[in-house]
Amino acid sequence: MEKKKVVLAYSGGLDTSYCVKYLTEEKGLEVHSVLVNTGGFEAEELKGVEKRAYELGVTTHTTIEETANYYNSVIKYLVYGNILKNSTYPLSVSAERVSQAMAIARHAKGLNADYIAHGSTGAGNDQVRFDMIFQTFLPEAEIITPIRDMKLSREAEIEYLKSKGVEMDFARAAYSINKGLWGTSVGGKETLSSNGYLPEDAFPTQVSKEKAESLELGFAEGELKSVNGQSFEASYEAVQYLEKVAGPFGIGRDIHVGDTIIGIKGRVGFEAAASMLTIKAHQALEKHVLTKWQIYWKDQIASFYGNWLHEGQFMDPVMRDMEAMMESTQKYVTGKVFITLLPYRFQVNGIESEHDLMSAKFGHYGEMNNAWTGEDVKGFAKIFGNQNAIYHQVNGEL
Amino acid sequence: MEKKKVVLAYSGGLDTSYCVKYLTEEKGLEVHSVLVNTGGFEAEELKGVEKRAYELGVTTHTTIEETANYYNSVIKYLVYGNILKNSTYPLSVSAERVSQAMAIARHAKGLNADYIAHGSTGAGNDQVRFDMIFQTFLPEAEIITPIRDMKLSREAEIEYLKSKGVEMDFARAAYSINKGLWGTSVGGKETLSSNGYLPEDAFPTQVSKEKAESLELGFAEGELKSVNGQSFEASYEAVQYLEKVAGPFGIGRDIHVGDTIIGIKGRVGFEAAASMLTIKAHQALEKHVLTKWQIYWKDQIASFYGNWLHEGQFMDPVMRDMEAMMESTQKYVTGKVFITLLPYRFQVNGIESEHDLMSAKFGHYGEMNNAWTGEDVKGFAKIFGNQNAIYHQVNGEL
Amino acid sequence: MEKKKVVLAYSGGLDTSYCVKYLTEEKGLEVHSVLVNTGGFEAEELKGVEKRAYELGVTTHTTIEETANYYNSVIKYLVYGNILKNSTYPLSVSAERVSQAMAIARHAKGLNADYIAHGSTGAGNDQVRFDMIFQTFLPEAEIITPIRDMKLSREAEIEYLKSKGVEMDFARAAYSINKGLWGTSVGGKETLSSNGYLPEDAFPTQVSKEKAESLELGFAEGELKSVNGQSFEASYEAVQYLEKVAGPFGIGRDIHVGDTIIGIKGRVGFEAAASMLTIKAHQALEKHVLTKWQIYWKDQIASFYGNWLHEGQFMDPVMRDMEAMMESTQKYVTGKVFITLLPYRFQVNGIESEHDLMSAKFGHYGEMNNAWTGEDVKGFAKIFGNQNAIYHQVNGEL
Amino acid sequence: MEKKKVVLAYSGGLDTSYCVKYLTEEKGLEVHSVLVNTGGFEAEELKGVEKRAYELGVTTHTTIEETANYYNSVIKYLVYGNILKNSTYPLSVSAERVSQAMAIARHAKGLNADYIAHGSTGAGNDQVRFDMIFQTFLPEAEIITPIRDMKLSREAEIEYLKSKGVEMDFARAAYSINKGLWGTSVGGKETLSSNGYLPEDAFPTQVSKEKAESLELGFAEGELKSVNGQSFEASYEAVQYLEKVAGPFGIGRDIHVGDTIIGIKGRVGFEAAASMLTIKAHQALEKHVLTKWQIYWKDQIASFYGNWLHEGQFMDPVMRDMEAMMESTQKYVTGKVFITLLPYRFQVNGIESEHDLMSAKFGHYGEMNNAWTGEDVKGFAKIFGNQNAIYHQVNGEL
Repeated sequence: MEKKKVVLAYSGGLDTSYCVKYLTEEKGLEVHSVLVNTGGFEAEELKGVEKRAYELGVTTHTTIEETANYYNSVIKYLVYGNILKNSTYPLSVSAERVSQAMAIARHAKGLNADYIAHGSTGAGNDQVRFDMIFQTFLPEAEIITPIRDMKLSREAEIEYLKSKGVEMDFARAAYSINKGLWGTSVGGKETLSSNGYLPEDAFPTQVSKEKAESLELGFAEGELKSVNGQSFEASYEAVQYLEKVAGPFGIGRDIHVGDTIIGIKGRVGFEAAASMLTIKAHQALEKHVLTKWQIYWKDQIASFYGNWLHEGQFMDPVMRDMEAMMESTQKYVTGKVFITLLPYRFQVNGIESEHDLMSAKFGHYGEMNNAWTGEDVKGFAKIFGNQNAIYHQVNGEL
Repeated sequence: MEKKKVVLAYSGGLDTSYCVKYLTEEKGLEVHSVLVNTGGFEAEELKGVEKRAYELGVTTHTTIEETANYYNSVIKYLVYGNILKNSTYPLSVSAERVSQAMAIARHAKGLNADYIAHGSTGAGNDQVRFDMIFQTFLPEAEIITPIRDMKLSREAEIEYLKSKGVEMDFARAAYSINKGLWGTSVGGKETLSSNGYLPEDAFPTQVSKEKAESLELGFAEGELKSVNGQSFEASYEAVQYLEKVAGPFGIGRDIHVGDTIIGIKGRVGFEAAASMLTIKAHQALEKHVLTKWQIYWKDQIASFYGNWLHEGQFMDPVMRDMEAMMESTQKYVTGKVFITLLPYRFQVNGIESEHDLMSAKFGHYGEMNNAWTGEDVKGFAKIFGNQNAIYHQVNGEL
Repeated sequence: MEKKKVVLAYSGGLDTSYCVKYLTEEKGLEVHSVLVNTGGFEAEELKGVEKRAYELGVTTHTTIEETANYYNSVIKYLVYGNILKNSTYPLSVSAERVSQAMAIARHAKGLNADYIAHGSTGAGNDQVRFDMIFQTFLPEAEIITPIRDMKLSREAEIEYLKSKGVEMDFARAAYSINKGLWGTSVGGKETLSSNGYLPEDAFPTQVSKEKAESLELGFAEGELKSVNGQSFEASYEAVQYLEKVAGPFGIGRDIHVGDTIIGIKGRVGFEAAASMLTIKAHQALEKHVLTKWQIYWKDQIASFYGNWLHEGQFMDPVMRDMEAMMESTQKYVTGKVFITLLPYRFQVNGIESEHDLMSAKFGHYGEMNNAWTGEDVKGFAKIFGNQNAIYHQVNGEL
Repeated sequence: MEKKKVVLAYSGGLDTSYCVKYLTEEKGLEVHSVLVNTGGFEAEELKGVEKRAYELGVTTHTTIEETANYYNSVIKYLVYGNILKNSTYPLSVSAERVSQAMAIARHAKGLNADYIAHGSTGAGNDQVRFDMIFQTFLPEAEIITPIRDMKLSREAEIEYLKSKGVEMDFARAAYSINKGLWGTSVGGKETLSSNGYLPEDAFPTQVSKEKAESLELGFAEGELKSVNGQSFEASYEAVQYLEKVAGPFGIGRDIHVGDTIIGIKGRVGFEAAASMLTIKAHQALEKHVLTKWQIYWKDQIASFYGNWLHEGQFMDPVMRDMEAMMESTQKYVTGKVFITLLPYRFQVNGIESEHDLMSAKFGHYGEMNNAWTGEDVKGFAKIFGNQNAIYHQVNGEL
């Protein structure tokens, strides 16, 4: 009899290593491991992960290079929406996990998998994202989550793996790091309680630039297309280049406190120079080229979009509807943004755009011009305040 | 025959000095000048302004000390709502002008004024705010705006005043400064175009602190009540004290680009250490004590509230409705926020609150606990993703 | 050893009768049954239910008369918000179930119950509402749901009860009816599919009035206080009286199609004369006394409030925040509304209120007046359209 | 010297007849009159209007047949958004006037007009819509509004026209009627005050059908494409056909009370059988095929879209953004809606669609099925209510 196939979301860490062994040996399944790279892995690392997967006994291991697609289907909209969850966090892990889950689901569909497995515990956000996206893409495939189902402790996993002759580095790092195109999250003992900032050396990118630098970012229809005059075909490459330029300033570090999908609050540190600069520059440009109500409504939409992505509901068609709206707003978000980079911070100096509504042609703010008269504004104020004036006369409160 | 009375919003500058003379001598009115202090004037300055007003010929001059009321009726809600217009600007001038207009209108009502005058030109936001609030409070009084009505140039005003024997400093400052409790705005040649940052010396508060300092802010039901352990009865005093502590770090400087009420875009620089710290600390605390949807909805409401205040529509009863909602959210926004102050920036390190929902009792994020099981989350994900799964099965797109 | 106590949400139907027997005999618990009346039961019925409960073997049976509290804590806000889910359904069952769950939870707390039980199956909304409210009020008590847990069929329940010697009417009604203060829901074979309207005789209240009648509803601060000149201390009594007057016209019948909490779509018929009339009259009055943005924002808030109530999230403090906002809007919602009742429909003829903003004093729409001039409007239009004019000149699309 | 050209928005009524004469004879302009048909005029009427225009002395008269374009650029989105202002009014006049203003502006641009004129008084909404759209399309052309500028009374206009030898019917109709594709507005003495319904004979379409009829409406991607099995290439023709079928039932009559652009409240009666049926049928279909959040968000967007259109701000690019979002939601809004027409009312019986999410495959509401278990829902409720449970435990209020 042929073995049944399971596709496993595999990272090479303890939990997913356990899963390979468990699914192969205890469940008798043909394991197909997949790693989805959303910009956080170097080629060398990927080779190492692949090698280890085969050593552990997978039938096939696949690395899906998803960075471009990740950018185009998710990150692009986080830029359009200037989305920083709770005014802070670029949603890097949320976006990444959703993107990875979709890539894995498509892979499993292609393989006609009977099962689809992930190594999540029962305590975090990722399990919900994986579960929901898998059940949407492959309603017929059963989801297996050994660590969650058996409530395994770290120690139990290690013992099992050792008993199977697996050798790997079982030591736990002081800080757990998750790296991707849109930022790097950092968790550690300081983030487990409500008070405490990460120490300098917990951040993967150390501050090595101390002198101010000028930065010029070029946008075309809302997408980052050039950095300091260097153009990029693909925006994700511009983001990666920007990270190299700005990362060593220690820009974009902070701690995010937020609501997990499962109802508790959680804290996580991060560094995200490129995403922070891209968003803040993009937003500065938008302030010049969008109308008041475009800004207002995009903000309202984006706030929900970010939350809903975070909660793994990316497949809700309302997300496509919101993307259509955000896309429409970007028609004229084209121009340059001028920034000064400094250690741990940056300063947006201004913009240049042929779509700039702050055009001298229409009068400088605070100075008279030919486009309208004081008389016009007098009439405007009269009518603009008419309902309130009536309201207070009728109700006689003043 | 008795002279008719005009109440004049008076600042002691060129435009309102012109108004005093013009209204007295050309219009034959009894001028009652008023200056409303919203925290930007020292006692010495106020005396000087009063002296000059009488020299110019006013019948009475009144200084209204409005800081406490300004805080209680407007600023408090900007804190509750964490309101930074376009994610940047604490709305200090907008809030101030509205508050001043209301104080002047109440004064004019008390005096039974026939007219109410302000020195605005036809080119800015303030004219609309003054006009609308005056017509709401005193629908029967006529509004006089000599500078706007006669389209007077600076030179014409100076010439007229000189012809009347008025002596004052007619030189124009390189940067126009507006100071108040909630921040200081700075306009100059750099802010007239879309690109350009203010030079260091344009900022009224120079950076004189260079070593990191710890800061502890205490909130009670959403209001700042203590700074570094020192308690304040009135929150506006806490804000003033905080400004003294943090201002010399050069914190809270930026340039705001935004939509004026009259439809054009404008830019203005500002420094606002106390308001920026108060808002960011308040927001950090809220992330721990409010539920997900409280945060979401307060943001949505606050965004409109800020815009509508900015546009001078403070008397719209919808503002009272939103204040009621924001007030309700603050019930448990009580606790301490820990911050590190550094030159030009600050870092929020964490919070402490008995209302903290990130309580260890209910499990640390990412670690298993007794409050729920992996099985619970499995069921949750199943149902939470149910509609999307159905949608995609029905429409067969995947 | 003392028996442990379970409080059971009891209706007297098949499912909860099963629960009494099962909890008493199989689980050895002391059963305390509770029925919460939210306006749907007559005194006679309540006595019958109590009698049966004791026959089945409960230790205590309690009838909680919740109508007044139900109105004050929930329904009042549905009126303030003019809430009709999906523009159709007054949310009668949703509101009722949440209110009942809270009353039962408080009762269980008072009794220091070890367990709390309800008879829901695993297929509907009510289980989620009961579960969530019980776990919020009594986190330490375990929730028991025999029908859901054991996936019992109707037949299995009947067989068990018969085996225990219980005699009751086991026949299933063609239409399931749920009656309460705010409306009566009707489910049957027509509502199980996407197409089909309920037959005339499925509606509990038959149409017996055929001649048009005038109706005058009086509101005070948003609450219904008089019907045809007859005043009521408590609004819920006004609602009950209105139902008597208008019910026989067959008003307020429709079919609601909506999203259940568990992700599927469901349909249900209903008749709701009093709630429909109260809401539509209230809304008509509001159009005259609220400002444009009050109406706009209340609608936005109310839409979420209704959904969140429907989903059983009434205990989220964001609901209190929204109630504070809605309450604030009702300050001047005082006046009379004039309606004509006709078979199956009604017509709102107009209103009368001292807070009416459509006051002849400020000009009739479309007729010139003294409050403003055509010149004012000209200036208004100039400025109000300024940003769009600039936008299109800058971008040269027209 | 060549005469300067003015394009005049012309209806053939008293005000615009006055304008022709005044602009020609007093201003010495070459008058180009334009009438834009948005579905309210028959061919015969249009010929009459044209004849009269030439008699009055226009240089050219143009009839722009705009119905198709009116539908495609505006009405389509009112259907997508199910837009009824204040839950009542299909915005027929608002939409029409904006559409007419744009057609006239394009015509004036094509003619290279020096001026553009309309006959509005200073008392209504239309002046603002015309002014704003004209200034956006033709910023260089001056807008002339003789009736508003000279504050002319009806009598003065008649006298002037008579003095010029113009003969026309100067009697004022008891009810002013405005007819177009999307509905007919009716103003009269009853709508001038806050209380009063229009008499039966004030409605242009009298009730001539008394027996119930079945109606089947077919939608494709959100647009009405068939009526009772008869297909239409263009949706506006389907609307016109539907009006013929349903109009004689007296369906879609009501009185709208709303906020005018100029700040006062106004009332207007209307009959709008086709638009009301189209919207309600479309909405019923959407309830079956859209997800919960698609419905929620479309409602929020549509509410603003309707208001902003009403206020003449159709050229704000935010309207294009919202249209993109609404368009995206319509992808699967395809299917049939079954309705019963009755005198003065109708009943939506159900729908049929291959995109129906209420599919029996996924379980009937309230009945157990294979897609999920009671255990799943138990877990769901646990997690879904987790934050509220924590909140209340932390704050100890219950």
